[in-house]
Parts: sequence; structure tokens; C-alpha cells
Amino acid sequence: MHELRAGLTKKKKAKIILFVLDGVGGLPHPKLTELEAAKTPTLDKLVKKSETGCHVPIIPGLTPGSGAAHMALFGYDPLRYDIGRGVLEALGLDISVSDKDVLIRGNFSTIKDNGSKVTILDRRAGRISTETNNRIVKLLQSRIKKIDSVGVEFVSGLEHRFVCKLKFKTKLDSSQVQIYDTDPEEVGVAPLIPKNINKNSLKVSNIIIKLMSLIKEVLKKEKKANYALLRGFSVYPEIPTFDSLYGLKAASIVTYPMYKGISKLVGMEHLDVKKNSIESQVDTLISHYDKYDFFYFHVKKTDSFGEDGNYKEKIKVIQNFDTELKKINKLNFDVICITGDHSTPSKMKSHSWHPVPVAIKSKNSFYGTSKRFTEKECLKGTMGLFEGKNLMNYILAHSELLSKFGA
Amino acid sequence: MHELRAGLTKKKKAKIILFVLDGVGGLPHPKLTELEAAKTPTLDKLVKKSETGCHVPIIPGLTPGSGAAHMALFGYDPLRYDIGRGVLEALGLDISVSDKDVLIRGNFSTIKDNGSKVTILDRRAGRISTETNNRIVKLLQSRIKKIDSVGVEFVSGLEHRFVCKLKFKTKLDSSQVQIYDTDPEEVGVAPLIPKNINKNSLKVSNIIIKLMSLIKEVLKKEKKANYALLRGFSVYPEIPTFDSLYGLKAASIVTYPMYKGISKLVGMEHLDVKKNSIESQVDTLISHYDKYDFFYFHVKKTDSFGEDGNYKEKIKVIQNFDTELKKINKLNFDVICITGDHSTPSKMKSHSWHPVPVAIKSKNSFYGTSKRFTEKECLKGTMGLFEGKNLMNYILAHSELLSKFGA
Repeated sequence: MHELRAGLTKKKKAKIILFVLDGVGGLPHPKLTELEAAKTPTLDKLVKKSETGCHVPIIPGLTPGSGAAHMALFGYDPLRYDIGRGVLEALGLDISVSDKDVLIRGNFSTIKDNGSKVTILDRRAGRISTETNNRIVKLLQSRIKKIDSVGVEFVSGLEHRFVCKLKFKTKLDSSQVQIYDTDPEEVGVAPLIPKNINKNSLKVSNIIIKLMSLIKEVLKKEKKANYALLRGFSVYPEIPTFDSLYGLKAASIVTYPMYKGISKLVGMEHLDVKKNSIESQVDTLISHYDKYDFFYFHVKKTDSFGEDGNYKEKIKVIQNFDTELKKINKLNFDVICITGDHSTPSKMKSHSWHPVPVAIKSKNSFYGTSKRFTEKECLKGTMGLFEGKNLMNYILAHSELLSKFGA
Repeated sequence: MHELRAGLTKKKKAKIILFVLDGVGGLPHPKLTELEAAKTPTLDKLVKKSETGCHVPIIPGLTPGSGAAHMALFGYDPLRYDIGRGVLEALGLDISVSDKDVLIRGNFSTIKDNGSKVTILDRRAGRISTETNNRIVKLLQSRIKKIDSVGVEFVSGLEHRFVCKLKFKTKLDSSQVQIYDTDPEEVGVAPLIPKNINKNSLKVSNIIIKLMSLIKEVLKKEKKANYALLRGFSVYPEIPTFDSLYGLKAASIVTYPMYKGISKLVGMEHLDVKKNSIESQVDTLISHYDKYDFFYFHVKKTDSFGEDGNYKEKIKVIQNFDTELKKINKLNFDVICITGDHSTPSKMKSHSWHPVPVAIKSKNSFYGTSKRFTEKECLKGTMGLFEGKNLMNYILAHSELLSKFGA
């Protein structure tokens, strides 16, 4: 796909914006989805002049993580480019990553240990403060610097989150970090063993087993954060950049580390946003409008409220976005694409596999099929139901950046 | 796909039922399809709370046999797992099959033989009685026991049907039974030669040519069943079981040998059904409800009447199913999926490639898009038009048996 598309990419310029409302898709709750219940006059107006459809993030029935879903939206086959959570978190925290490093996403957590049996009581250690996190990370770093010949580095994230970097002496590829997470994703059970899935991964999994028992030893006197669950063991993947694939100078306007991470991974420049608000993100967009061809604009809170099961607040975020969208009309984009990375129905309190509405407004849009930016209305559009990885094709087509395929 | 899914399968439990109304899809006849013409209050009610779509059994425009269509519904790529008719019939008749056997589906038939030319008069020998069949099979078995060093076994089916097993001395794979059927599927012409499609299959095709002339010799004095047409030459395929793929203990509630065969092939347990009626099948379901995670419930007669071109009787079967469906509501399924394996429009009197409605009812369904279980109404649903092999993904997703893909 990449080669095919590269061969067709024209050396022209276009101004493009891709809005990703994280987890925006929903379910009838009990009658209207969040998008159906929201009052969105600006979106409605835009959609009436847009080409529409719904995307299936990965393949039918698969519920994606945000990383995989974003890879698809950016035009990468998510089954081929499977990016580990550890790497995404590390990039989001501005940790330098080399091809000799294994990156791990950690959660401080609370366990009960009666000597013979360990039971997880809280997977997030009661969401300890970032301050406490900093103190604990410092403690860990002072006590664990090396395991055998492998360097160990800890970096604090927000609340209970941290990243651990294992610095090996030689280059590693992804076949060497096929290791099960230690987080069982439930409480009342024991942590899992970081078992190597293939033989190739034994070297790394042995280090991780040692790491786990060292962490447990160091943290044993902590009240809440007396343990750490580890997941997303991963190495830096080799990914062609956005610029090399599409000839587009791209920037990201995001407020959460993971999305900063994924946008850097594909070679986008990260633009600073002053406050964690859509309004502030729009300010950043306006002030950098002239400098880039492509903007990736990520709205996080639709997903957060979906995960919390907060139907009303998710609707408010959509309405807030709708208000801010008005300002975009004053800019002169050739292509405006609005979609989500996946659905997070507040009814399910989790990501889901359901299709996600897509609207693309350009002078080349086949409009007139959909009246609103909702799941049902967009499904009526001429893009129908398509795999998320094909979205960039549509965006490039609307931008007139692709020439004809074949004679 | 199997590996990908296996990596995501959660060790949780769910109660699932998959109803397959064989050949249920139809064509406007002249105005309403069979599903549109049927009165189906229970289905209508269920569909209003279901996620809907239509599946394309194999790929666009391909008309499937029931075996291939079922493999897709069970989540196996039908282009990769091409199961021979001979094996399916054998399994349905409880014939043991080893990896050294070639299985053949046979039809007793009537020919005219004037010495220089053989012409097929009736492909089913006037649908002789099963009693006559038993007598003839005994005769064949007494006269044909071995061809060269290959053992030969005959087993009666119903009416004109039988199975022949060729017992070779060494293991065979599917590349060694690529041989054309001898049944030309029309009368007034000569039977075809069981020509080997590749060189690898010459050994088996030579035995089959000898088998044909032996059968002809033995049967030459019979009035009706003076010949046999052979097809579906096949060996036992290596297929991962339903349990190993999905962690589901599965049972089949079917009344026809072939469907029993295919369900055994994927590792389902076959449950006895007292009478050949949907009512009796429901009785079996109710009495085994507690013992399995997944039930495959097959309704045959929608297809049979479709093949006969009997529009009215096909409608009646759908209505009969609708009545019985009421009893299902009293059971406590997490996921109810209703679909067909393919279309058999009574207008065409044959299987067809047309899309087949699908409804999935669970607490996670995106409902509200379709008012009835019909081709047109289900096409409006959020599953859109999808390949049959993806159905199990949706079913597992609704059952909350798959974890997230990617970080």
C-alpha cells in the first residue's frame, strides 16, 4: 500500500486538518448515542457539505487500543505496525529511545503479600499523587541501576504511571520482546508472570523477572504503591515517516503524552498547547497555520468520559468541540476531516469495535447523503464502511495529492 | 487471523447461540423476498434490539456450497480450509476417517449404455428407497473389497446417497486428491472422467477410474440404480478446533448428516434431536442449555424449499422458526446471532451469492438501524456488508471474549 501510494503521490501542496475525537462513537443509550444527543450546529452544517462514511478501526469485531487505531488513521496497516505501549508512553514523556532499548509501561499498584501468595488489591495504587510517584521513582532509581549487564532507567508519568527503560548492549527487534504483560487487568488475583511467548524473547523476559522481584523488594515498605504491574514490553519500531510517505509536513496538536508519542513516531512535529483545553488547542492551530501542510488535532476527553461511563459529560465535550469548530471555518483548509480513532460507548465504559463516523469536506466531496455527524447518518455516505487504514487514501485524494492509478 | 485472535481471547465464559437458517436469503419474488413476505413478530422484536448487517458468504459474487459457507461462519477462511464433500458426508454418517483415507460422495443413478456411449438418464436413480440402497451397497461391498492394494468400503446414506472410502497404505494430503467429479450435474450427457487436476493426484485418480468400471460392472443388472456418480474426492483436513481457537465448549443441534459432519470437523459435540423438526431441536437446546458455551442451531428446510422453488413453503419454515424463537427468550443467552449460510432464492432454485442478513443481540448491540430481519433492513445496520469469515469476530466481541488489539 505504501509503495503503491508513494508512486502516485504528486508534489503539490495542500492544507489539511484531521480532527480525531478520541472514542467519539457510541451506542444507543438507551435511544440516542452521544453524537445523536449532542447539539452540534457547526458540525451539522459542515457534514451537509461533506463526503461521509464510517470506518472499522482494525478489522470487523476487533476492539483497538488507541495506538493501533491511530496507526490505521495515519495510513499504516495496524496489523503490521504493532507499536508497543511502552514505546508510546516513552515517546510521550520525551524519553530518548534507541534500537537497543526495551520500553515498559508501569503502573504502581497495591498488593497483599502473605508470603506464599500475592494478591492485587488496587491496580493503580489508589491513583497516588504525581509527587509521591516522583519520590518512589527516585527511590527505585537509586536502588536499581543495572540488572546483569543491562542498564535500568525509571521515569515518572502522571499519578500511578511510569516508564522503565532497559538498556541492552546490542540491537533488539520486536521478535525478542514477545512477552506477556504482568497486569492481569483485574483485582483479587495474582500478578502474571512475564512469560516469553517465543524462545527468542527469553533473554529479555529473564531480565524482567529479575526486575519485578527487585521492584517488589524496594517498594515493600510503601503503604499504597508497594508493587508495580508491567506491560507493553516493546522496542523502537522502524516506521516510514509521514513526510516520506505523503510529502506532507505534519504537526500534532495534542494534550496527552501517548498521542504526542505516536505523532512523533510517524515524524510529526509536536506543537505546544498552553492549557489542556480544545480552545487552547485551536489557538495553537491558528498561530501555526502557515507553517505546516497537515495538522493532526486530537481531542482526548470524549474517550475519558466514555471510559468513565459519563454520557452527559461526553456529550458536553462534543458540544465544546462543535463551538470551537466555528473558528476553523475562518482558516482556509483544502481538506477538513473529522473522525474518531474508535468508539468508546459510555454504556460500555470501554473501547469497542463499533464503526466510527467520518466526514471529509473538500471541494471534491460527494455530499448530500448525511445530515449529521452521527454513526447512522455517516453510514449512509458514499465511503460506506471501510477499514481505518484507508482513511489517508481518501484524505490524499480530496487534497488532489494522488495521481491516477494505472493507465 | 487465527493467531491474532488467539492472542486476544480472554479466558471468560459466555452463553452464545448461532442460528443458521440454511439458504434463508432470497430475491424479490416478484416483489417481496421470502423473509419480507413472512410474518415474523418474534424476529422483528429481536432485530429492533440487535446490531445488524449482511454477510457476503465467501467473496463478492461467489456462490458457496454449504460446507464452505459454514466454515466461514465458524471463523475459518473458506478459501484456505476447503473441505471436501466426501469428508463431510462421511463424518455425517459417523464413518471413521483417518489421514490415509480418500472419501467420496456417491449418488446412485440411472444410465443408458448402448455399448459405445453412456448417457445419464437420472442423476438420482429416481430417488430409490433407502432399503434398496442398503441392498445395493451390500452387493457392492461383497464384490469390491480391494483395488490393487487399496481397501474399499461402502456405506449407505439416505435414498440414492452413499459414501465410499478408499483406504490407502500411506498418509495423503489434499494436493493428492485434486480430481474432477464424475457428476456433470445434468442429464442426457455422459458421466465425466475423474481426471487428475495435477500430477500428484494421478495415483488416486487411477484407483477411482478402476472403481468406476467395477461399480458399473456390478450394478449393470439393476433397473434403476445401474450406475453411480462420484464427487467430492477428499482427505481429512487439519483444522484447529473451535475450543482451541475460541476457548468455547460448543455443541451442534442439527438434523442433517452434512451439518453434523462439519460441526464435528471443527470439534463441536453433536446433540441428538428426536424428530426432524425445529420444535424438537429447541427441546434439545433447552435440555442441554447448561452444558455448553456455544450452540450451533441449524435449520435445514429453508434451503430445501428454496432449492425446490417453493416460495410459499420456504416462508412457512421461516414462520415456524419465528414461533419457536419465542422459547429462546426464556433462556439467558449473552449473545443471540441469527443468520443464514448463504441465499437460496426460490426464484433461482439454487444457492446464490447474494448477501445474507445477520442480527446479533447482546447488551453491546448497536440497535435501532433495522426494523425487520430482512435483506434490505439488515443492510442498514452498522455491520454493513462484511465477509462471512468475520462473523465470529463480531460474536466474540459481543460476548466480551476478546481483549483490545494493540496499545
